[in-house]
Amino acid sequence: MTKVFLKKKIQNRVLQGHPWIFGNEVGEIQGPVEAGDIVDVFTHQGFFVGRGYINPQSQILVRLLTRDKNEIIDAAFFHRRLQKAWDYRRKLGYVENCRLIFGEADDMPALIIDKFNDYFVLQTLAMGMDKWKGAIVDALHKIFSPKGIYERNDVPVRELEGLSQQKGFLSDAFDTNIIINENGLQFHVDIENGQKTGYFLDQQDNRREIERIVKGGDVLEAFCYTGTFSCHAGFYGAKSVLGLDISEHAVNTARRNAQLNNLQDICKFEARNAFDALKQWTKEEQKFDVVILDPPAFTKSRENISKAVTGYKEINLRGMKLLKPGGFLVTASCTNLVPPALFLETIDQAARDAKKRLRQVTFQTQAKDHPILRNIENTTYLKFLIVEVS
Amino acid sequence: MTKVFLKKKIQNRVLQGHPWIFGNEVGEIQGPVEAGDIVDVFTHQGFFVGRGYINPQSQILVRLLTRDKNEIIDAAFFHRRLQKAWDYRRKLGYVENCRLIFGEADDMPALIIDKFNDYFVLQTLAMGMDKWKGAIVDALHKIFSPKGIYERNDVPVRELEGLSQQKGFLSDAFDTNIIINENGLQFHVDIENGQKTGYFLDQQDNRREIERIVKGGDVLEAFCYTGTFSCHAGFYGAKSVLGLDISEHAVNTARRNAQLNNLQDICKFEARNAFDALKQWTKEEQKFDVVILDPPAFTKSRENISKAVTGYKEINLRGMKLLKPGGFLVTASCTNLVPPALFLETIDQAARDAKKRLRQVTFQTQAKDHPILRNIENTTYLKFLIVEVS
Repeated sequence: MTKVFLKKKIQNRVLQGHPWIFGNEVGEIQGPVEAGDIVDVFTHQGFFVGRGYINPQSQILVRLLTRDKNEIIDAAFFHRRLQKAWDYRRKLGYVENCRLIFGEADDMPALIIDKFNDYFVLQTLAMGMDKWKGAIVDALHKIFSPKGIYERNDVPVRELEGLSQQKGFLSDAFDTNIIINENGLQFHVDIENGQKTGYFLDQQDNRREIERIVKGGDVLEAFCYTGTFSCHAGFYGAKSVLGLDISEHAVNTARRNAQLNNLQDICKFEARNAFDALKQWTKEEQKFDVVILDPPAFTKSRENISKAVTGYKEINLRGMKLLKPGGFLVTASCTNLVPPALFLETIDQAARDAKKRLRQVTFQTQAKDHPILRNIENTTYLKFLIVEVS
Repeated sequence: MTKVFLKKKIQNRVLQGHPWIFGNEVGEIQGPVEAGDIVDVFTHQGFFVGRGYINPQSQILVRLLTRDKNEIIDAAFFHRRLQKAWDYRRKLGYVENCRLIFGEADDMPALIIDKFNDYFVLQTLAMGMDKWKGAIVDALHKIFSPKGIYERNDVPVRELEGLSQQKGFLSDAFDTNIIINENGLQFHVDIENGQKTGYFLDQQDNRREIERIVKGGDVLEAFCYTGTFSCHAGFYGAKSVLGLDISEHAVNTARRNAQLNNLQDICKFEARNAFDALKQWTKEEQKFDVVILDPPAFTKSRENISKAVTGYKEINLRGMKLLKPGGFLVTASCTNLVPPALFLETIDQAARDAKKRLRQVTFQTQAKDHPILRNIENTTYLKFLIVEVS
């Protein structure tokens, strides 16, 4: 097997558990190098570090799959890892839907698998993982006997790896419009055309957190996408719910979700720019009991962090102003480029500008099936805050 | 009413909502000053800031009760505040037990009231609040028709205010050994002689968080006090639970709590120094599925923070080493002198030293009935973390 030797001076990152090895961290390579091949990684002195896949076309030259030199990377390896990940989710209480594999957090770099009851959606975002797609699909069949498996590899990041963007069935064809159960409600999931893998499972635990605060209130949700928070609000006893999203398609799905849960009389949706609506209604001094802000990532690059922070601040400031005294702001941010401390500081700054006082009800992260690795920076990507505003 | 004028140059703290005014922030005082009296506070230019109580003997000269100049401080004021605080707790789902008043977070500086079903335990920690004890007790009677009210003013901090340490009944006498229900279990609460107000309500939401991870496992709890986490572990299906506390009295209560929940065959307790036990068992390579660390505050002064951090690091490092691969560490810190970021950094450092990898399951704070004020630093005093250790 090809041997990759690290430079004498490298960051402790790799030795402290980070699975990525960048090209400039590598000194010598002994043996042939083909994109996606399994290689062994050693320190400068020749101590075994780990085993992973290599891709000279990628900025991340090697991603480690194991640090156990006796562990062979074969079909059985992927079966074991999937089984272990599923055992972990079940231990934490997940039954029907979960992120089954969350890449590095499950020692499966660049692999994402979401489980929607009997259906599985898969992303292989690096060459070395893509090569094992067959073994991964086989393992899913063995462990779950699924009704369908679909790949949502229609993501630009694959091109950096020399992979094409593609989507389609990895099992017999099936109807990709499915229905899932979550927290006692039902939701439409469009596996083929929904965002990312079709549904945002990472907020599933957070959605329960609004149960107490929405009861009997008028609720506004900006950036509602397919209306899952809105439907939860209706289900938990809100008097009225208004969801806004700029996408007509999302709003239509939101309406179908309300209908599916018999909440169409309580949950209404409008296709409009949430920024504009928040601005206009602040001027008109409209008031709600609860405002929910679950915007998309305002930035995907480091260069735009301050712009993103300005955006977060603006919508939160307006959200606070739209609340009756003692109302609740439910606010989230899903980009790992805005770490929790910066997110909180942004909200606090918005409160100072709005001359409001915030009492914290809940501050948490993505759901437990998207594990945070404490030894890898920025894996706490989702921030979810509820505050009382007065 | 006596008027207190702030100096021209003061920190924004007070104007941004902090209710404390230190002596060195005050320029002029117009009118007589008697410890505990209600005074009005103005800016240097004469703008009304708020109304509160004064105590020249205290480092904190004035603590504000309201920023509404039309609000009169009288018995009705205290009744309104208690009612509001109770409405808030009920909104968030608290029924039987809660911290009803959490000082500044409820705009009642230096007042603590814990509700244990029909019994109330009260602390008035400043002269200006102590003066209104009668009105507060009256309000409790009106709102709750309680079976008993007790004061646990046996705390040294009162002496800084010129108040004596004392404890006793503020209602007809009653049996101060009561039983409360929490998360489906029952616990003995010793109102007269238990720590603080007799019971740590601030972990009541966190105790539920161990439900999934303890099932079928061998659990060790160090610093178990009266065994509430241990009993929860047994109740949630642990195979065995061992609780350690240096206090023979606490361990006896823990045993009685186990008995009360019919968990005496699962939950065992030993009176011994947890530091010593963790050290010895690490050497002996004993292993558990779950280790729970809920130590008392290792420091109460800024001078000893680094010493406290060393202590937290040591017990967490040992806790990690006592776990089987894939076991769970449940770890908390209750001092506001160690903020969340420092706490996490300490745990991460312990993991590096122990050569363990941590996957975060839960990271949260004190229960919602101890609200965190986002505009006041260090009100996130309780940190509660669950990690998978491998």
